[in-house]
Amino acid sequence: MIAERMKPLMANNSAIRLMFEEGDRMRAELGAENVFDFSLGNPNVPAPDEIKQAILDILEEEDLVVLHGYMSNAGFEDVREAVAESLNRRFGTSFGSRNILMTVGAASGLNVTLKTILNPGDEVIIFAPYFLEYNWYVKNYDGKVVQAPTDKKTFYPDIEALKGLITDKTRAVLINTPNNPTGVIYSEETIKQIAAIMEEKQQELGRTLFLIADEPYRELAYDGAHVPYVTKYYDNTFVVYSYSKSLSLPGERIGYVVIPDEMEESALVFETATAANRISGAVNAPSLQQKIIGKCVDAKVNLEAYDRNRTALYEGLKDCGFDCVKPEGAFYMFLKSPVEDETEFCAAAKKYNILMVPGSSFACPGYVRLAYCVSYDTIVNSIPAFRKLAAEYGL
Amino acid sequence: MIAERMKPLMANNSAIRLMFEEGDRMRAELGAENVFDFSLGNPNVPAPDEIKQAILDILEEEDLVVLHGYMSNAGFEDVREAVAESLNRRFGTSFGSRNILMTVGAASGLNVTLKTILNPGDEVIIFAPYFLEYNWYVKNYDGKVVQAPTDKKTFYPDIEALKGLITDKTRAVLINTPNNPTGVIYSEETIKQIAAIMEEKQQELGRTLFLIADEPYRELAYDGAHVPYVTKYYDNTFVVYSYSKSLSLPGERIGYVVIPDEMEESALVFETATAANRISGAVNAPSLQQKIIGKCVDAKVNLEAYDRNRTALYEGLKDCGFDCVKPEGAFYMFLKSPVEDETEFCAAAKKYNILMVPGSSFACPGYVRLAYCVSYDTIVNSIPAFRKLAAEYGL
Repeated sequence: MIAERMKPLMANNSAIRLMFEEGDRMRAELGAENVFDFSLGNPNVPAPDEIKQAILDILEEEDLVVLHGYMSNAGFEDVREAVAESLNRRFGTSFGSRNILMTVGAASGLNVTLKTILNPGDEVIIFAPYFLEYNWYVKNYDGKVVQAPTDKKTFYPDIEALKGLITDKTRAVLINTPNNPTGVIYSEETIKQIAAIMEEKQQELGRTLFLIADEPYRELAYDGAHVPYVTKYYDNTFVVYSYSKSLSLPGERIGYVVIPDEMEESALVFETATAANRISGAVNAPSLQQKIIGKCVDAKVNLEAYDRNRTALYEGLKDCGFDCVKPEGAFYMFLKSPVEDETEFCAAAKKYNILMVPGSSFACPGYVRLAYCVSYDTIVNSIPAFRKLAAEYGL
Repeated sequence: MIAERMKPLMANNSAIRLMFEEGDRMRAELGAENVFDFSLGNPNVPAPDEIKQAILDILEEEDLVVLHGYMSNAGFEDVREAVAESLNRRFGTSFGSRNILMTVGAASGLNVTLKTILNPGDEVIIFAPYFLEYNWYVKNYDGKVVQAPTDKKTFYPDIEALKGLITDKTRAVLINTPNNPTGVIYSEETIKQIAAIMEEKQQELGRTLFLIADEPYRELAYDGAHVPYVTKYYDNTFVVYSYSKSLSLPGERIGYVVIPDEMEESALVFETATAANRISGAVNAPSLQQKIIGKCVDAKVNLEAYDRNRTALYEGLKDCGFDCVKPEGAFYMFLKSPVEDETEFCAAAKKYNILMVPGSSFACPGYVRLAYCVSYDTIVNSIPAFRKLAAEYGL
C-alpha cells in the first residue's frame, strides 16, 4: 500500500512512537509532575508578548485580502526586507529582500535548499552527533549523508577528517551551531577552518561545494557567546533559520533561507529555491506568521529561563558525578553514558522516572541527550532521581 | 549550480514570470482599473468575519505554549475531530480524527499523498485540462503523469478512454472537481463510472489503485449544485482539501487530507502520510491556522460575490459571441479560442488590456482560462473590451 521509499522510515517511526507512548503512560500512571521528561525539544518558554500584540495590530491594520492572500512564493517583500535589515544591523551583512526566502520553518527551508542543489547520488557531509531527520531530508532528493567525526571531548568538528571526506561526489557540508544535541557553538576559528578546506577543495575538484548552516538555535546562546555569521566566511553558504525556538513558535512553521549575493549565480539559485518552495507544496510561508515576523524581527524569548535550567541541570549532573560538555547554546545537554550501551542507561533511568533520548538517535552511541526546555521545578526535582541513578553506576 | 531536475522547471518558471511582469507593467502604465486581469486564481473576496473573531478568541483562550507549539504531526486532535464532524454532518460520512491529516494547504496535501503512495515510474492519470502544477508534484516522487481526455463539449471525463489508460503501471487517478480551469462539477453518475472502472481494474490487475480527489473548490458550487463526496463511491480514495478558497486563506497554507477507514490498511497509510508530512519539512500544518479552522469549520465566504461575477461574465461573453461551458463551480471559465492557436488570441486580447491564461498552460490548447475572482467592476468594464476583441474575430 505504501511507497517502498517510505518503508524504512516507518520502521524508525514506530520506535519513536513507542518512546512517546511510554512517556504518556508514565505521566498517566505517576502524575506529570513526577515524570522527568527530558526527551522533547519543544520550547516550554512562551512566545514573547510582542507576538500577541503584533497579531492584534495586524488585524487592525492589514487588508484581509492581502493579509491572508497569496504573495510572491518567496514571501512578502516588506517582511523579507525587515528580516534582511535586522540581520544587517546585528551581523554587519548587506542583505536585501533579494537574499531572503521565507519558508515553512527550518525543516522546509532545508528541504527547499537540498531540492535546489542535490543531484541523485550527491553527498552531504554532516558532523555526528546530529539531528537524524537530516537523513530523511537528504534522501528526499536521492542524496547520501556522509558522517564526519567530532572530537569527543569538545564535540568540535574533526577538520582533518573533513578534508579526507570531501570528494567529487560531495555537494554540501551541513553544520548546525548552536548544536542539537550537544549545545556546542562553533567558534570563529572553526568556521574559518571549515571554510578554508571547502575553498581549497572547491578549487582542487573544480566543483561547487555548498555550506549549509542550520541555525534554529542561533538566538539561544548563553554568557554572551558569539555565534559567527557563516556567510561572512564562505561565499556558497545557505543559512537556514527558524523562529521555532527564538520566538517559541515551533507549531507555526515560520523561518527563512538566506542566499547571499556572494553565492555563485545567486539570483538563479534564489529563483530556483523559490520554485522549489512552490512545487514542494509549501507554496509560501504562512502569511499571517510572515507579517508577525515583520513586526517582531528583533523580539526575544526569555533566554534567562533556559539559562537557569542549563546551570541547574549542568551543576546538578556534575555533582552527581556525570560527565558532560557544558552547553553554550540551544537547550540540550549531551551526557556521557556511564556504560557503553546507552540504551541500557536510558532504560535504567526510567526506573527513576527520567526520560532521555539515546545518543544512537543522533548517530552517536554512548551518550544521551537531555532537552532542558522543561520547567525549572522539573530540573530541581529530577536531581535526586539522577543521584540515585548515578549511585547505581558507582559514580 | 542548481539540481538537474530543477532545470526544466526553471525554463517554465521564466514564462510565468514574464506573464506576471507584463501585467504589472500594464497596470503601472495604464492604471490598475484599466487592466482587465483574469489571469490569477487569487481570491478577491475577503475571509469571512468569523476568522478575525476566531483569532481574537483564540488569543484570549489558549495557552501560548500550546497554541504556537508542536503537536502531533497530523495536527491538533480537537481540530481534526471538528473537521471530521463537520464532514460527517454535511456528507453523511463517519470520519474521526484518525482520518484527518492537517496539511500546509492542498498543494502540500497532494505532495504528502503522492509521497505516501508513489514508487518510481508509477503513473498518475489526470484528465486534461488540468492544473499543470500536478506534473511537478508527481515528478517530485519520480512518478509519471498520463493525460486522459475529456469531452470537449462538457469537459466531463472520457470514461472509455480512462479504461484503456489504466495499466499495471497505474497507481492513481487524480480528479479535481469543481474543476480548475473549466469550472465543471462531476456528477454523481460520473464519479460512479470512474469508481466502477477503477474497481474492475483493481480486480483485474491485482493492484491497488488510488483515487485522489483534489477539492479546494468544493464549497464554491453555484445554483445549489451537488458535489458528490468521493469516499462514498470508492474505498481507496484520498480527499485533499484546502481552505484557500472556501475561507479565502490561500496565503495561510491550511488544509487537510482525508484517509478513510475504508481504504486498505488505512491506519498504516495514515501513519505513513503523517511521517511524509514530517519529513517533507512541513512537520505540521501551521498551529494558529489549525485552531482557527477548529472554530470556523462551517464558516463560508461570500459565494454570492463570485456568483454575480460568474453570471455577468458568462452572459457578457456569450452576448459577444464567445463559446464557453457555463461553469457550475470554482471561479474559472474556460473559453474556446476563436482561432486554433489560443496564444495568438491571448496576444490579441492584450491590445484591449485583457489578460487571460492560454489553455496550453492547462494541457488544453485552443482554449483560454479566465479567473473571475476579480471585482465586479472589472467584469462589467471588461465587456466592451471583449466586444471589440470578438469583432476582430468576426463574432
